[in-house]
Amino acid sequence: MTTYSFKNDYSEGAHESILSALLKTNLNQEDGYGKDSLSNEAIKIIQQKIGNKNADIHFVSGGTQANLIVISSILKPFESVIAPLTAHIAVHETGAIEATGHKINTVNTKDGKLTVEDIQSVLDAHTDEHMVKPKLVFISNSTEIGSIYTKKELTKIADFCKKKKLFLYMDGARLGLALTSAKNDMSLTELSNLVDVFYIGGTKNGALLGEAIVINNNELKENFRFHLKQKGALLAKGRVIGIQFLTLFKNDLYWELGKHANAMASKISDAIIGLNYNFLTDPSSNQIFPILPNKVLVQLSEKYGFYVWKKIDDQSSVARIVTSWATKEVLVNEFIEDIKKFSENDLNKNVEILINNK
Amino acid sequence: MTTYSFKNDYSEGAHESILSALLKTNLNQEDGYGKDSLSNEAIKIIQQKIGNKNADIHFVSGGTQANLIVISSILKPFESVIAPLTAHIAVHETGAIEATGHKINTVNTKDGKLTVEDIQSVLDAHTDEHMVKPKLVFISNSTEIGSIYTKKELTKIADFCKKKKLFLYMDGARLGLALTSAKNDMSLTELSNLVDVFYIGGTKNGALLGEAIVINNNELKENFRFHLKQKGALLAKGRVIGIQFLTLFKNDLYWELGKHANAMASKISDAIIGLNYNFLTDPSSNQIFPILPNKVLVQLSEKYGFYVWKKIDDQSSVARIVTSWATKEVLVNEFIEDIKKFSENDLNKNVEILINNK
Amino acid sequence: MTTYSFKNDYSEGAHESILSALLKTNLNQEDGYGKDSLSNEAIKIIQQKIGNKNADIHFVSGGTQANLIVISSILKPFESVIAPLTAHIAVHETGAIEATGHKINTVNTKDGKLTVEDIQSVLDAHTDEHMVKPKLVFISNSTEIGSIYTKKELTKIADFCKKKKLFLYMDGARLGLALTSAKNDMSLTELSNLVDVFYIGGTKNGALLGEAIVINNNELKENFRFHLKQKGALLAKGRVIGIQFLTLFKNDLYWELGKHANAMASKISDAIIGLNYNFLTDPSSNQIFPILPNKVLVQLSEKYGFYVWKKIDDQSSVARIVTSWATKEVLVNEFIEDIKKFSENDLNKNVEILINNK
Amino acid sequence: MTTYSFKNDYSEGAHESILSALLKTNLNQEDGYGKDSLSNEAIKIIQQKIGNKNADIHFVSGGTQANLIVISSILKPFESVIAPLTAHIAVHETGAIEATGHKINTVNTKDGKLTVEDIQSVLDAHTDEHMVKPKLVFISNSTEIGSIYTKKELTKIADFCKKKKLFLYMDGARLGLALTSAKNDMSLTELSNLVDVFYIGGTKNGALLGEAIVINNNELKENFRFHLKQKGALLAKGRVIGIQFLTLFKNDLYWELGKHANAMASKISDAIIGLNYNFLTDPSSNQIFPILPNKVLVQLSEKYGFYVWKKIDDQSSVARIVTSWATKEVLVNEFIEDIKKFSENDLNKNVEILINNK
Repeated sequence: MTTYSFKNDYSEGAHESILSALLKTNLNQEDGYGKDSLSNEAIKIIQQKIGNKNADIHFVSGGTQANLIVISSILKPFESVIAPLTAHIAVHETGAIEATGHKINTVNTKDGKLTVEDIQSVLDAHTDEHMVKPKLVFISNSTEIGSIYTKKELTKIADFCKKKKLFLYMDGARLGLALTSAKNDMSLTELSNLVDVFYIGGTKNGALLGEAIVINNNELKENFRFHLKQKGALLAKGRVIGIQFLTLFKNDLYWELGKHANAMASKISDAIIGLNYNFLTDPSSNQIFPILPNKVLVQLSEKYGFYVWKKIDDQSSVARIVTSWATKEVLVNEFIEDIKKFSENDLNKNVEILINNK
Repeated sequence: MTTYSFKNDYSEGAHESILSALLKTNLNQEDGYGKDSLSNEAIKIIQQKIGNKNADIHFVSGGTQANLIVISSILKPFESVIAPLTAHIAVHETGAIEATGHKINTVNTKDGKLTVEDIQSVLDAHTDEHMVKPKLVFISNSTEIGSIYTKKELTKIADFCKKKKLFLYMDGARLGLALTSAKNDMSLTELSNLVDVFYIGGTKNGALLGEAIVINNNELKENFRFHLKQKGALLAKGRVIGIQFLTLFKNDLYWELGKHANAMASKISDAIIGLNYNFLTDPSSNQIFPILPNKVLVQLSEKYGFYVWKKIDDQSSVARIVTSWATKEVLVNEFIEDIKKFSENDLNKNVEILINNK
Repeated sequence: MTTYSFKNDYSEGAHESILSALLKTNLNQEDGYGKDSLSNEAIKIIQQKIGNKNADIHFVSGGTQANLIVISSILKPFESVIAPLTAHIAVHETGAIEATGHKINTVNTKDGKLTVEDIQSVLDAHTDEHMVKPKLVFISNSTEIGSIYTKKELTKIADFCKKKKLFLYMDGARLGLALTSAKNDMSLTELSNLVDVFYIGGTKNGALLGEAIVINNNELKENFRFHLKQKGALLAKGRVIGIQFLTLFKNDLYWELGKHANAMASKISDAIIGLNYNFLTDPSSNQIFPILPNKVLVQLSEKYGFYVWKKIDDQSSVARIVTSWATKEVLVNEFIEDIKKFSENDLNKNVEILINNK
Repeated sequence: MTTYSFKNDYSEGAHESILSALLKTNLNQEDGYGKDSLSNEAIKIIQQKIGNKNADIHFVSGGTQANLIVISSILKPFESVIAPLTAHIAVHETGAIEATGHKINTVNTKDGKLTVEDIQSVLDAHTDEHMVKPKLVFISNSTEIGSIYTKKELTKIADFCKKKKLFLYMDGARLGLALTSAKNDMSLTELSNLVDVFYIGGTKNGALLGEAIVINNNELKENFRFHLKQKGALLAKGRVIGIQFLTLFKNDLYWELGKHANAMASKISDAIIGLNYNFLTDPSSNQIFPILPNKVLVQLSEKYGFYVWKKIDDQSSVARIVTSWATKEVLVNEFIEDIKKFSENDLNKNVEILINNK
């Protein structure tokens, strides 16, 4: 790539500590399929960080895999999962959940976050055996459009789910970004106490690959390794993911990386606010959605990679700008300067811009 | 049931000619699994009526079964089906389609009918391998809320599907009602020529049970009996359904039954119009959705069975009134008189009415 | 068919009492989807006959449907079902069980009947999460090759299953034939007490269509109607099957029909024994498997329909002869005379015979 | 682990060149989901090595994942896959194939290798729509019990499959071991020309993780990325596997590693032959199955890790000894000396040994 990319948070490899740890342990003989000493150590550290020594923790290679295994392990054939219309499982996983046999009941939300009212509306519409039976609530934190849940919001959902005998599952592909957001008011332990299952994303916060599925609810623990194996998720060299989570959590590297990504995003959004542009959703984490003039976007696209999310009108569009643990501050500064500069340039003709949201 | 039911079109058994035909052929020895002489004869007559001697025709026991087998036989694992939000497959089949692994892409419609623009909007939103690939369009005629497609509307959809390489499937659970509606302008042959696959509903138009799946598109014919068997739809005594379709189509009984049901519904809707009440959707076939005062509904519910579909405001609600081939005219007359009478009664207190839509 | 068929037990329609009952109740308005008064009455009678007033009973249209719904309702995604290699689910259901996601662990048996040792051998081979977890035992009575379980045999299996926390399911497509066999020593109540779930076959013992699923184990009852609906098995006019089981069980017609079928089979097998021919398996019910000279089979096949099951050597083959509730004694007598006569005829050339087992 | 392990070929991490390559390219920005420059380069090199520039190549994280995606992408719902009884998909993948809806038709083989006669026997038993339709043949090279296919054997199978319109798929988890076996007579290009699809195993031959699926048959290429995504196999950082295959194939490292593993196994088997012990199957690759006295196995198990595969009699059992690219020659020598020494020791009592085959 000749342009510098703000397209996503997985353009680079892994943080160097992870590669060092891989090198250092490389020739140790370890047991296979996640029963190695490195995974065991990683599990213990995560149990400690979430404040639940009884949590079951399993490492898998990616987020879609985590979602499809967790959801299909919980639901009976006729049960469904409630999710926002923008949920990754509803849009960007090629029907992975339906492929395991389950319907997703989607609800249109303002900002990618589900509310108790949203969930109740689905329950109201499903009353007998001619319809699926909603049994699981799916939320993401941060969401697919960058927003994050407050402690109060999550508590309300968790209480409601308990009352209605619904399980609550959180997709934490970007949990490291959510919990280090300037707007976050929740600790990992507090969050973990509120959900039945969640996963902690590695891929999008400094690992080569890997997500850690955390099962707090005892009802959902049994035989989980059978599900992992059946869906092709039990890696012979499970150590490869274990060592990465060990490295990320041993010295709180995970949070440092999240903070950096968020700081870079804030720098950009502050500059954009300074230029009096608006946003599709309030900037909260490492994904921001500024509404910029097409002429600015066209000029930016010659130097930088990013997605155009949505057309607003003939003159302007929403861009998706994503920063990561690896984003270089010097290039962020340059990017900001360029936005300013390009905003002042007068382009001769009206510009169309291609939508390429992912 | 002590009240007379306008709840649905499957409260009675079968038209007497069907029972006579069952009796008459009962002790003939016939081959099993749909290869009997009665099914073969029924197939020939249907092929003639639809004007396609090459159509493949298979009999199954119900509509959900027909839908799940047809759809899962057509789609590859990652392909999806486009349907109105009110489609039977999207709401009232307990996730039967998802249970075969496929996502339904739903579109909100005004009257239960899909348009070319609706389909295009789904195509626009599905652009790469991170999303399912829409490949099939599902429509019902008449729809789940009583509306019917005109020849022009269906032709537009069919042409669009051909252009976009989408298959077109019609759920004809109430095809007999749609094509004998006073508002219909299409023959069975014309309709059949426009769709790749459809089914002709028996259960809701005079049969004990049974639907006839008609496959016009050669691409979709191969090995269909394997799908039927795998899904538990190949009846050992397939003759039971064959003889019913033979009886329904031999002397156009099927259309007579549809006409009667529609006539009964028209009588009721004309009376309701005469009383200056409105409808949720324009009454077109044997399912009508009048908006009536709660006080009228409450009184009616003591003598008649019907569903309350939806609350409109504190004073009135939508009722679903369904007639059938077996609806007795004398009771329709009484029902009409009662609506008039109950409209004039003054109930002392404001009444709440229970929503029980199916 | 110009020849008289001993091919199967579903060549004719239904016993005349069933058709009469259908006629008599035809125009009564009844609730849909199995909640009608006829089904309710049938359920009560069956609960009484099996001696379990708490049993849940559901009517479905066929055996493959019953099997796939029961099995998929019981098993978690990684669990499997143990069955004889000759089991209908393993051979003749087009992968219906696998289509719901589950492996069948098959065991080679001598006579189509499973033993405790067979089940143990499967358990021994499945030890961890790299393998499926066997959780359900599938048996048929009578089996697919005509044999039946004794009370002692079934008790041993049931005890073993309880000890090993396996569920026990019996396919009773031909239960009416098994329990009226001269070799049977078990009552319906005794049998029902030993299994968690079973189904009572209607299609192959005098009904037009229909099987009654009986769930004794409380753990397996919940939400079963959701499974029925999702798999397309909930008939709008469920009354059609309800009235048939009501008729079959009200006056023990079910057992009379079974007795007739078995008596006809015994007559044939006694005659064959008298001619010094052997059998593939000991004749026990309405399916018998005599080993006859090809020259006899060739001559018989000109007057009678039956399946050739298996070649034994160049001179002889196994035939499958099936009788039913509708088999006419006069034609059985003629068939016996023909076997005798054809055994004496000298055919000039060695004959090949086509295997067409089903 | 305190003992030196001959349990499997995935006890260590990756060859050091792979880690170096990861380090070197770590901070390059690359496109996600397998569209990075490293994967592209790896694909080109593999296309060259197999002699098919039109092959489609996709990287996934493990063997079960490769198998379940390839097989489910090829088969229609009612189609099945033919495999040896010992096939990984039939035994050690927790029903992963059945979970995608497909039956495996297994055949008992002598040495884990399928023959044309085996395949024909399955075809003979599947004749109509009451049974699944076999459409794909699954073989492994080397097999799960260490044997390998000769060019003549594979050619016969390939020719037969073409004639019978069956697809041929090879599980190459240990392809690097098969093709560098002293008994192999086939080049990678020759092998690739004979199969429709195969995968080249990385995990068991020097990679951290990763398998390369190679699709030669044009019919099977379309939309494969949709299958990958739906099954959770499309890694955001696909580069992680791409760089590994690039490193393994750029300088034929893949073959060097295979040769080393085989040489270590040969050394051990030669020594065992010298001691006049027998083998369960002829030693051909890096998995060998010697039959050793229990007293020897017991002593060995104190110093070395390995699986006891099967009891032979009261005195002796089969061990599974596996070497790998990382096996140290000095420890192989020690292991050999120990076998010799322990064979001479007289243990006082008869010893039982635990079977722990995987």
